Amino acid sequence: MDIKTLQTDIHTALAGLQYGEHPVELYEPIRYIMSLGGKRMRPLLVLLGYSLFDDNHQKAMNAALSVEVFHNFTLVHDDIMDEAPLRRGKPTIHQKWNTNTGILSGDVMLVQAYELLLDIDSAHLKRVIGKFNRCAAEVCEGQQLDMNFEHIDAVPEADYLNMIRLKTAVLLGYSLELGGIVANANKVAADLLNGFGVNIGVGFQLMDDLLDVYADAAKFGKQVGGDIIANKKTFLLINALKLAEGKTKQALERWLSLTEFDKAEKVQAVTEIYNHLGIKALTEAKMNEYFDMGLQQLDAIEANETAKAALRAFTVQLMNRDR
Amino acid sequence: MDIKTLQTDIHTALAGLQYGEHPVELYEPIRYIMSLGGKRMRPLLVLLGYSLFDDNHQKAMNAALSVEVFHNFTLVHDDIMDEAPLRRGKPTIHQKWNTNTGILSGDVMLVQAYELLLDIDSAHLKRVIGKFNRCAAEVCEGQQLDMNFEHIDAVPEADYLNMIRLKTAVLLGYSLELGGIVANANKVAADLLNGFGVNIGVGFQLMDDLLDVYADAAKFGKQVGGDIIANKKTFLLINALKLAEGKTKQALERWLSLTEFDKAEKVQAVTEIYNHLGIKALTEAKMNEYFDMGLQQLDAIEANETAKAALRAFTVQLMNRDR
Repeated sequence: MDIKTLQTDIHTALAGLQYGEHPVELYEPIRYIMSLGGKRMRPLLVLLGYSLFDDNHQKAMNAALSVEVFHNFTLVHDDIMDEAPLRRGKPTIHQKWNTNTGILSGDVMLVQAYELLLDIDSAHLKRVIGKFNRCAAEVCEGQQLDMNFEHIDAVPEADYLNMIRLKTAVLLGYSLELGGIVANANKVAADLLNGFGVNIGVGFQLMDDLLDVYADAAKFGKQVGGDIIANKKTFLLINALKLAEGKTKQALERWLSLTEFDKAEKVQAVTEIYNHLGIKALTEAKMNEYFDMGLQQLDAIEANETAKAALRAFTVQLMNRDR
Repeated sequence: MDIKTLQTDIHTALAGLQYGEHPVELYEPIRYIMSLGGKRMRPLLVLLGYSLFDDNHQKAMNAALSVEVFHNFTLVHDDIMDEAPLRRGKPTIHQKWNTNTGILSGDVMLVQAYELLLDIDSAHLKRVIGKFNRCAAEVCEGQQLDMNFEHIDAVPEADYLNMIRLKTAVLLGYSLELGGIVANANKVAADLLNGFGVNIGVGFQLMDDLLDVYADAAKFGKQVGGDIIANKKTFLLINALKLAEGKTKQALERWLSLTEFDKAEKVQAVTEIYNHLGIKALTEAKMNEYFDMGLQQLDAIEANETAKAALRAFTVQLMNRDR
């Protein structure tokens, strides 16, 4: 149940995964993207969900890998749609090879996610695949909404929260619930695990929105203010557009409309507008609302108390990342 | 067991399928592509495979629709990769909307194919999804090989046959076998159904290659000689390149190298080279080899003899299409 052990076991299992050989043009990009690393957060959540009810976490390992392969499939296709040149500091598949390779290798990864899931007990299969289907469709819906929002000036806060729930949070909920189901958790516990995952997932995305502006530049892996530079419709910008009035609103809209600008100057100016409007506190309040809802659901699960305390500690540690 | 009845039932079931509503940008393209029609050959094969062992074909209907949705998913993504502007005479999804919509709507369709498959009896689920996964990965492998062949001058005949087996034939084999399994066919019968489907599938693709050149223009839905104009590496061209010598080889290679030419003149010239080399008889012999292998496997299945005769008659009728 030690987190380091679970992470090591996930690493070992991932390294041993066989994706396929022929044609090499199809399978090499899959090995490439899967080898780029990442936090492996989702398979860890599967194993942590499992550990609440049973010790033998290897029984859920292929289910855990299924989620990681699925997550990477979404990254491969999203990177094409977003025209992203880099992923984890390395060229994306469509950049290193081409768009067709990205589409087709991604398709095979989605199929492989289903194949890994077949390792679970037959008794759970229909229910779990149904949940996975729902989750996978919702992730696509979230990506579509995210792309839609690029062309909408005023995105309602509720629509934004729904988008991040679909695009990123439902997969965390599914991961935890999957682990629970494989460990034969009852329906009440499985639902609570799912709710816990979805709520902390929305919270984490709000934290990402916050960190983009308010992270400690020395600790933050990315450029601070990247979302501001790109006019990305984050929770912060959506609320700033709603709250700003008069000269503040004019200044904000001017920065959004400029096609040429000094990046540092724009980041500083928009951050000052956020400060003036109290956007940081407002976002933190919403984030903590989701975190609290999630933790309450975790607390309500009837499970091994030691395992629950470890999952709680791990989650709380993530909630305090770089802040 | 009457084919017309099965086709009508498929049509009705397809018309009643709910793909999803929100966001409309994701689901409208799915409704569009699924409404464009087509022969609905694969769901028909599922129901025909089922009918060999049981009368109540509605039990296999959602499994049949699963295959049709999967097939259309492959068309949506292949059309992006092949930059195809038209599908069944209408704009392709990426043409009517954009590439991102084609990628994402296609992804959801693959998920929906799995969802429809969940309707089958739990007892068969793990085995059937495993077979579907293998089939889906092979279809992607076939598409990758097909794209690879565009950049290879001399494609070996065996590699070409393997490519068309993967890209188009394995799905016919899977469709028939799926129907059989849902009707509780034993393993020997299911394997024979699969083999039958794969072999006639390869035969049908060779027939497509032949029809492109030798079809009756009045009956053929497409431009005769389209493959010749596009230098498509069909079974005919691969063998012509292998067999041609001296001036014939020079003439063939000259036609392949020209970037500007009169289309009718090229079609006529290359067809004459094919005639000179006996390519038509050679392709027909290979095609009939596959058809014969397939029909022998069908004959060997222990099943309802009336249903088998109907499936045989339907297949033989397809084998004599427009020739």
